[in-house]
Amino acid sequence: MFKILKRSKKSRARAGVIETLHGPIHTPAFFPVGTKATVKGITPAQLNEIGVEAVLSNTYHLFLRPGDQVIKKFGGLHKFMNWPKPIITDSGGFQVFSLGLGLEHGASKIVGPDLEARKKRNAGVEKFTRIAEEGVYFRSFLDGSRHFIGPEESIRIQENLGADIIFAFDECTSPFSDHEYTEEAMERTHRWAKRSLNAHKRKDQMLFGIVQGGEFKDLRLKSSEFIGKLDFDGFGIGGAFGKFKKGKKNELDWAIEGLPENKPKHLLGIGSVEDIFEAVKRGIDTFDCVTPTRLGRNGTALTKKGNINLRSAKLVLDKKPIENGCGCYTCSNFTRGYIRHLFQSGEMLAGILTSIHNIYFMEHLMRGIRKDILNGKL
Amino acid sequence: MFKILKRSKKSRARAGVIETLHGPIHTPAFFPVGTKATVKGITPAQLNEIGVEAVLSNTYHLFLRPGDQVIKKFGGLHKFMNWPKPIITDSGGFQVFSLGLGLEHGASKIVGPDLEARKKRNAGVEKFTRIAEEGVYFRSFLDGSRHFIGPEESIRIQENLGADIIFAFDECTSPFSDHEYTEEAMERTHRWAKRSLNAHKRKDQMLFGIVQGGEFKDLRLKSSEFIGKLDFDGFGIGGAFGKFKKGKKNELDWAIEGLPENKPKHLLGIGSVEDIFEAVKRGIDTFDCVTPTRLGRNGTALTKKGNINLRSAKLVLDKKPIENGCGCYTCSNFTRGYIRHLFQSGEMLAGILTSIHNIYFMEHLMRGIRKDILNGKL
Repeated sequence: MFKILKRSKKSRARAGVIETLHGPIHTPAFFPVGTKATVKGITPAQLNEIGVEAVLSNTYHLFLRPGDQVIKKFGGLHKFMNWPKPIITDSGGFQVFSLGLGLEHGASKIVGPDLEARKKRNAGVEKFTRIAEEGVYFRSFLDGSRHFIGPEESIRIQENLGADIIFAFDECTSPFSDHEYTEEAMERTHRWAKRSLNAHKRKDQMLFGIVQGGEFKDLRLKSSEFIGKLDFDGFGIGGAFGKFKKGKKNELDWAIEGLPENKPKHLLGIGSVEDIFEAVKRGIDTFDCVTPTRLGRNGTALTKKGNINLRSAKLVLDKKPIENGCGCYTCSNFTRGYIRHLFQSGEMLAGILTSIHNIYFMEHLMRGIRKDILNGKL
Repeated sequence: MFKILKRSKKSRARAGVIETLHGPIHTPAFFPVGTKATVKGITPAQLNEIGVEAVLSNTYHLFLRPGDQVIKKFGGLHKFMNWPKPIITDSGGFQVFSLGLGLEHGASKIVGPDLEARKKRNAGVEKFTRIAEEGVYFRSFLDGSRHFIGPEESIRIQENLGADIIFAFDECTSPFSDHEYTEEAMERTHRWAKRSLNAHKRKDQMLFGIVQGGEFKDLRLKSSEFIGKLDFDGFGIGGAFGKFKKGKKNELDWAIEGLPENKPKHLLGIGSVEDIFEAVKRGIDTFDCVTPTRLGRNGTALTKKGNINLRSAKLVLDKKPIENGCGCYTCSNFTRGYIRHLFQSGEMLAGILTSIHNIYFMEHLMRGIRKDILNGKL
């Protein structure tokens, strides 16, 4: 159940709430990613203290290890990872891209200027996947073993995992795929969307369809219209985007164009502060991204004034918290100088404390955006 | 201030309390080790929730990084690491052993049957240290830079760190050192003990002297008598020991023999469950050891029935907590099967959850021993 509580008058932004069996998700919301049934380095108690309402886990990884059947025997993902609040699982389709063609192309999800260089650097990476009408044949990134996932398998796996929101199986194309291939993949994704809907039996889960179409306006519009007419509980926008340019419509606008206004919309795997602001204005309700924890483990803290490199020698004697006025556990108790020492010393606590701060930062960024929408300021 | 509340009638065990400016330490007590100003993987909030009263940090490591002067500028170690309860620092002497001669000899602190093999394996490890009358010249294990620490330097560093209990500078000999060398080192440690006492100015810190003498009865008795007569606030027993044999006196008994009964006694760096029981009966009040966190990170959990290997394939579907009836955060919320999955997946949370359990186990082991002493059962 999705309820829109307030719509912005200046943009397509809105504030709402997604009601699930495991509690509400107040939108706009950011979901920390717990790829392998754990948000890296953070306990559920710490996530809860931060105020996180929902996390996203990866179907592909959990299918391979420990296996969805194992998790089912533990009573589902909520019990397995001790997270009683809402969980979202993706369809596994993105990993077909990121561990297959995407790896080959050296591509990420938002196209930057250095992609041609990366493409060259990654030439020769082995192709792990074969895409057919029935689904995807691939080798495990863990041990090279052979596997198959089609729409029916993806839904069955996600039903075993038991998340509150699950996604239809899709093919996520590379930003380097041409119009012809992107269209072919999109049409296949549309057929898979219908098969996913037919396969889905657990009515306690919300099933979201995914819009693809790459960077091509005509394809994004077509995909949006097709997927938007199917009986999904919400929608995900997948694949690559060009950089957002102020006041200029882009792939995201076209991808939303045909979707029903009153259903929740998730932007898959995108979570930079800048992109979130632009996407919320275009009508996106929820986000997920590994960035806050990945940056945190690597020594980068998110702040309102931009990123801080916590490994910097300048911070040796810095007695300030990562961010003045931040209410997180890290900023309430530790200095930049101490955290720098922890990074210098290779201590686990370095990544833990910085990840806590970064997740708190994202959670409160979203709360601020939500508040602004509710107050009519955004 | 040390107060003995109850003495056992069957052994030299006693229950007491060490009062420090940062709060009480109820003894017998186990101190988790925070070598580099952090107990690996655990936040101070988690340590506090476990009920830990005090932690031990390493002077040698903090002297090299970030430097005692840096920590002094943060207001001392308590503020730097955000641990407002008691802190103990060792003298740095043990690292002279473990990163110098001990490394060369492949020796650990309790002599096991495989030491000859280890000695051979480690032959050729470079000697990092040179011990002279004035103190120890050594190279940093971080960057090879040259340093010197003598008794006056050790005390000055420990005053800058500002722990509640600090130790006199000592030379910890290898179990392979012969009687002649062990005696020479012990005599030097005695002279350093006096110099440490003279150098110590901060009267808000308790200064403990260290008994050495290796595995030799005559030297242990001699060291105990000499150090026991000096005006220390408590005592540490350093160096190697043979295995405890029931009902048989060993180096530990001789090392305690000459020490004043009414002062606290710390057994440096020893923390196996078996050894703790034996040492408490012989009159030891406090312990420190990296074992609970090191084992925890490597996948071994401590339980009343012995160690559990959490990586074992047998645990895939195990829905039990690490230990039935354990009240720690980990056992209250997570299954062995989940923690096994985390170890298999190389996730940080694996080591975090197991370390929390292991520290809780040690803390409650000590509380049990204390209770038994207070009730006259031990």
